[in-house]
Amino acid sequence: MLRFLTAGESHGPALVGIIEGLPAGLAIDEEKINIDLTRRQKSYGRGNRMKKIEKDRVKILGGLRNGISIGSPLALQIENKDWAIRKDRKSQKKSIPRPGHADLAGAVKYGFSDIQNVIERASARETAMRTAIGSVAKILLAEFGIEIISHVIRIGKVKVGKQILNIDQMKNEIAKSAVYCADPQISIKMCLEIDKAKELGDTLGGVFEVIAYNLPVGLGSYVHYDRKLEGKLAHIIMSIPSIKAVEFGEGIINASRYGSKVHDEIKLKSGKIARSSNRAGGIEGGVSNGEPIIVRGYAKPISSLRDPLKSVDLKKNKVTRAPYVRSDVCIVPAAGVIGETLTAWVLAELFLEKFGGDSMNEIKTNFDNFNKV
Amino acid sequence: MLRFLTAGESHGPALVGIIEGLPAGLAIDEEKINIDLTRRQKSYGRGNRMKKIEKDRVKILGGLRNGISIGSPLALQIENKDWAIRKDRKSQKKSIPRPGHADLAGAVKYGFSDIQNVIERASARETAMRTAIGSVAKILLAEFGIEIISHVIRIGKVKVGKQILNIDQMKNEIAKSAVYCADPQISIKMCLEIDKAKELGDTLGGVFEVIAYNLPVGLGSYVHYDRKLEGKLAHIIMSIPSIKAVEFGEGIINASRYGSKVHDEIKLKSGKIARSSNRAGGIEGGVSNGEPIIVRGYAKPISSLRDPLKSVDLKKNKVTRAPYVRSDVCIVPAAGVIGETLTAWVLAELFLEKFGGDSMNEIKTNFDNFNKV
Amino acid sequence: MLRFLTAGESHGPALVGIIEGLPAGLAIDEEKINIDLTRRQKSYGRGNRMKKIEKDRVKILGGLRNGISIGSPLALQIENKDWAIRKDRKSQKKSIPRPGHADLAGAVKYGFSDIQNVIERASARETAMRTAIGSVAKILLAEFGIEIISHVIRIGKVKVGKQILNIDQMKNEIAKSAVYCADPQISIKMCLEIDKAKELGDTLGGVFEVIAYNLPVGLGSYVHYDRKLEGKLAHIIMSIPSIKAVEFGEGIINASRYGSKVHDEIKLKSGKIARSSNRAGGIEGGVSNGEPIIVRGYAKPISSLRDPLKSVDLKKNKVTRAPYVRSDVCIVPAAGVIGETLTAWVLAELFLEKFGGDSMNEIKTNFDNFNKV
Amino acid sequence: MLRFLTAGESHGPALVGIIEGLPAGLAIDEEKINIDLTRRQKSYGRGNRMKKIEKDRVKILGGLRNGISIGSPLALQIENKDWAIRKDRKSQKKSIPRPGHADLAGAVKYGFSDIQNVIERASARETAMRTAIGSVAKILLAEFGIEIISHVIRIGKVKVGKQILNIDQMKNEIAKSAVYCADPQISIKMCLEIDKAKELGDTLGGVFEVIAYNLPVGLGSYVHYDRKLEGKLAHIIMSIPSIKAVEFGEGIINASRYGSKVHDEIKLKSGKIARSSNRAGGIEGGVSNGEPIIVRGYAKPISSLRDPLKSVDLKKNKVTRAPYVRSDVCIVPAAGVIGETLTAWVLAELFLEKFGGDSMNEIKTNFDNFNKV
Repeated sequence: MLRFLTAGESHGPALVGIIEGLPAGLAIDEEKINIDLTRRQKSYGRGNRMKKIEKDRVKILGGLRNGISIGSPLALQIENKDWAIRKDRKSQKKSIPRPGHADLAGAVKYGFSDIQNVIERASARETAMRTAIGSVAKILLAEFGIEIISHVIRIGKVKVGKQILNIDQMKNEIAKSAVYCADPQISIKMCLEIDKAKELGDTLGGVFEVIAYNLPVGLGSYVHYDRKLEGKLAHIIMSIPSIKAVEFGEGIINASRYGSKVHDEIKLKSGKIARSSNRAGGIEGGVSNGEPIIVRGYAKPISSLRDPLKSVDLKKNKVTRAPYVRSDVCIVPAAGVIGETLTAWVLAELFLEKFGGDSMNEIKTNFDNFNKV
Repeated sequence: MLRFLTAGESHGPALVGIIEGLPAGLAIDEEKINIDLTRRQKSYGRGNRMKKIEKDRVKILGGLRNGISIGSPLALQIENKDWAIRKDRKSQKKSIPRPGHADLAGAVKYGFSDIQNVIERASARETAMRTAIGSVAKILLAEFGIEIISHVIRIGKVKVGKQILNIDQMKNEIAKSAVYCADPQISIKMCLEIDKAKELGDTLGGVFEVIAYNLPVGLGSYVHYDRKLEGKLAHIIMSIPSIKAVEFGEGIINASRYGSKVHDEIKLKSGKIARSSNRAGGIEGGVSNGEPIIVRGYAKPISSLRDPLKSVDLKKNKVTRAPYVRSDVCIVPAAGVIGETLTAWVLAELFLEKFGGDSMNEIKTNFDNFNKV
Repeated sequence: MLRFLTAGESHGPALVGIIEGLPAGLAIDEEKINIDLTRRQKSYGRGNRMKKIEKDRVKILGGLRNGISIGSPLALQIENKDWAIRKDRKSQKKSIPRPGHADLAGAVKYGFSDIQNVIERASARETAMRTAIGSVAKILLAEFGIEIISHVIRIGKVKVGKQILNIDQMKNEIAKSAVYCADPQISIKMCLEIDKAKELGDTLGGVFEVIAYNLPVGLGSYVHYDRKLEGKLAHIIMSIPSIKAVEFGEGIINASRYGSKVHDEIKLKSGKIARSSNRAGGIEGGVSNGEPIIVRGYAKPISSLRDPLKSVDLKKNKVTRAPYVRSDVCIVPAAGVIGETLTAWVLAELFLEKFGGDSMNEIKTNFDNFNKV
Repeated sequence: MLRFLTAGESHGPALVGIIEGLPAGLAIDEEKINIDLTRRQKSYGRGNRMKKIEKDRVKILGGLRNGISIGSPLALQIENKDWAIRKDRKSQKKSIPRPGHADLAGAVKYGFSDIQNVIERASARETAMRTAIGSVAKILLAEFGIEIISHVIRIGKVKVGKQILNIDQMKNEIAKSAVYCADPQISIKMCLEIDKAKELGDTLGGVFEVIAYNLPVGLGSYVHYDRKLEGKLAHIIMSIPSIKAVEFGEGIINASRYGSKVHDEIKLKSGKIARSSNRAGGIEGGVSNGEPIIVRGYAKPISSLRDPLKSVDLKKNKVTRAPYVRSDVCIVPAAGVIGETLTAWVLAELFLEKFGGDSMNEIKTNFDNFNKV
């Protein structure tokens, strides 16, 4: 059973993560993980802290020998590069919660008089470690030909239309886009939309889509509610900061359609089972059906505005303005990268559950045998 | 830690459920559970099996003495009333998977030559037991003044507009509607829409909304990704058959808005913290913020059509039509009831985690003390 | 992941259990389970309720079609045969806790004024359902040639000496013994010891041993503390009522020996790895090593004595005598049967984790491939 | 729910641990943890690596602000001081498994050709991190007046007799003993026994006892098998390397006694419920009963002998001698320290489950209220 824990505050010395349950025999290259960490940081619309200070790099402190996993837990660490500078700064207690953040609810829950105690961990900074963890899952799945990508399909009012691209075209287009959008025209419009919002001192949300290719049939199960693939994926996608809705395939529009226009007919293609469409997003009845898995996350715009919203100073019990803390204009492309790696995590978890085994060799044999039938 | 397991097939003798982790001292009236079971069964658009044969009633076989919980696991049972009649029928092996169901993926996963082995458990019949289980959670939460309702806000193309009703008005309107819609005019239109689909031999999906009132601040947590309230709720809502998207508050539309139009300002109302809006759906940063929790499930139309979709006979390896099995036209109101009880389950789980305690008295003292601060 | 929940009170209508995570394609014969239920009930030294009234028989309400598992949860039920007679009896509140039972601690924990609320579930009656559940695990493991037996090695002061028997001899001797002791001479002495205690109005504890044969190398793991095989087995053996110590192999005496006399040398036997002894009880470093697993449970005598111990009437706050409730003299053989089935449960859980797979065919292929290497 | 993961190899750069589920508002002083780390390292009978090189010190990388917990996960790190020196050494593949270790079973399970891959994580080195983690649990429990100690009651053939000491006397005596034995005479004999074994090139096991004082009634539960306190403690004690038996109270000798000599009568002492003995070790029916919890771990002697045992070279398929790796003569006092901290862990887990709450203030109020009744 694959599991992980993470720790670390936004302005603490480091982010830490432990993965337990990895098989032995998997080559894990830190540089592959660093690529995802960079993708999370560098997209258009991120603020300055992100671009200049952090430069996240993962360090693996346990679980590998000569770069190969040995079955023991993987320990990951990402240093907060600005900690050395900041650690001796004294900070005043914060008593004004920002709307749209955990500030108020967190302070009440934990009994804090200083809201910074909430901010330190509720900050999206922690997603750097989760990106690294999910990146390891991507490396595992890649050994079985499974590939997972993410792209941005909406920023504010700008959205992509219907596109039919194969995986290589997708990867190619996304790599060229500053906002990880597979349509080059729309990509430019999205950047302009971000520029406009920045000028206004406002922020933008949007929608990302994760696609997982080449999955075997049979991940997840309908036999018990908590084993359904959609449920597990929705859980993890919804755990990304700012995400307030999750959709599989054409899940939202399908709620308005007639049944005859919704389902994916089954056909034969060169003697093999195939589908004429993939409106289900690769999952039927909680089980992967062999089509690409398509899951979308709907991100609200972050709430740090130049003209801050009204709030209440909890110490003075007085209406005031929320503090203005940081300056990302749009985090949707970053959320997509996080969603991509976390999707990989859930799929890896269910993959290992289905195929068992303690070493890559054993798993590969099991996997091949299942596919032979 | 509250947990449950369920078992039982669609055409087996009974559905069975066990809840572990209930406190002692809770009065559990089977009739209250039966009300939810009936609400799940009787809405407009359900097929004949639902209306005539089942008449679900729960029987509690363990966990109570004189109607009061004693801390031990609760055992629930719902008989399948038609089992006695059906049990000796021989049925032919099924080899044609229905698109939109677990049929194909389930048969591959478990290596079945008879798809009926999938259908028996993948059928929505199992949700009767989950409704009963969630209904127990509602009973628990009601002791703390927490109430949870569901209503239908869209069926096919027919949807409700902006409504401002308090909880009593909501309950009143929903009780009068054949499709559990709080707007009487729209309710009639929804029924007509169902009639039309029925005539066409087609089916309809839609959207339900669950609202949870009077929750304390502080359920769920931002400190670890798997403890976030949205994630846990999304998981369980997505586990309802036919649901392919989940939304909190105004999660979908918010993805298109500017940040300045999305967040809920904090204000003082008679000296107490309040909000001017609830676009976040009562959850910020993974934690309940004291506003009503609002979660929506997007249901696809079921796939049993009078003119069935194309499929493949797996035995003959030949293209054919999917079998036509049952005849609900629209299950959205039922899905809403299931969503309502399952939402109660997640909230009860987190409620007991926060307030601890082994007996209702102990929990009430803990709860009151937290609220005093 | 294999998991189960149980419910049911000692004087309620039934015991209920649900197993989730069983593969498809396993033939489960209720009669095989009933044999273990009978073995649990009929040994020498049990009281009258056990012998005359219960006659446990399991009924499977879910998870099978035509006697074969279909991957969905297994629902088990054992009726309490005397319930029909007892259900309308009014019983007085009990306020005198029995030493050696959960009575006092349970009443304080759950805030009960009536100790019967504790007794109903803390009674060893619930182990009937766990025996049935573990019996299913035995059926699963038997498909892979794994066999698990239990025998009694001590009752009071009477204990077996060193015996060298193979599995068939063991099974043969145990079947002939009224107390499931593999040494026929000692078996008679144990029965006499029970007779003597009965005459004295006293009770006897003892020690049982569970042996699991033909396990593959590699169940459990050293990589994380909670995955060690000894830990998992100790947990479940210690969960049997009356058990207060658990030992693997020669674990207790080894604590007094020099290291040179404790470990099991590794040798070659017909070119294959073998051992010259099995003092480790088949587990090294938390992992099964291919030798028979040997685990012992140390049972205290039950505390229901004809001359009851001193206690306090909690209502009157007055010293008094504990009530005399039931009349088993010695439950060690029954505890052994429970231990045997629960050991099977843990081994099945780890077996499925190692070999993965959703159907018996898939698991068998995976298992054979691992063994081939 | 309190949970933790650890990672790190014996010769890797560091050991890493994450604790999730700690309440906010707990002062955690690294120096208190370091005391337990030192106690684990410095006892009589440890080898040279332990004494000279390691000098374990914990570093907390997350979860605290100004030394106070903030509800977020705690990240702990212990550097392997000798790593800098060792990291560039090339080591030859090891192919000779040591009897009594995970070497053989681990290599088969994970498919390793180099046994060092097993040794790195199966080494008792990982217990340093678990000691630190359990030490945090001790700090938490101490806030509620709960204290947990460990002492050695047997090394080889030398064992303590009946002692009646209160907690302060125990702590005092243990602090003075090189082997953490509360009897000064026996302590000397134990050291001599260790000297003798060392001369012989042999090793010694023994028995430690953990005692937990001032626990509330009601931790653990009889309502479900996996919630029983003995089971959870046995699991964690058995997870300590070398431990092969676990006993509560007088669990082993009680298996030979008559029931009338085993149970702890209930009496009144100054109007309050009390016991005349504590043979049950503070737990009845899986629930803490308010008496001190007494649990013992039986440690086998470690298997690294100067005259190594026979083994097989797996590469050459040839009988040979096991390699001689390290040189502790007796690790029983260290195992006691580990057992003490891990016992604290389980008790803290159940304590937080019973009393709920997210901050120390909230928990204290809940705790006081329960005790008031």
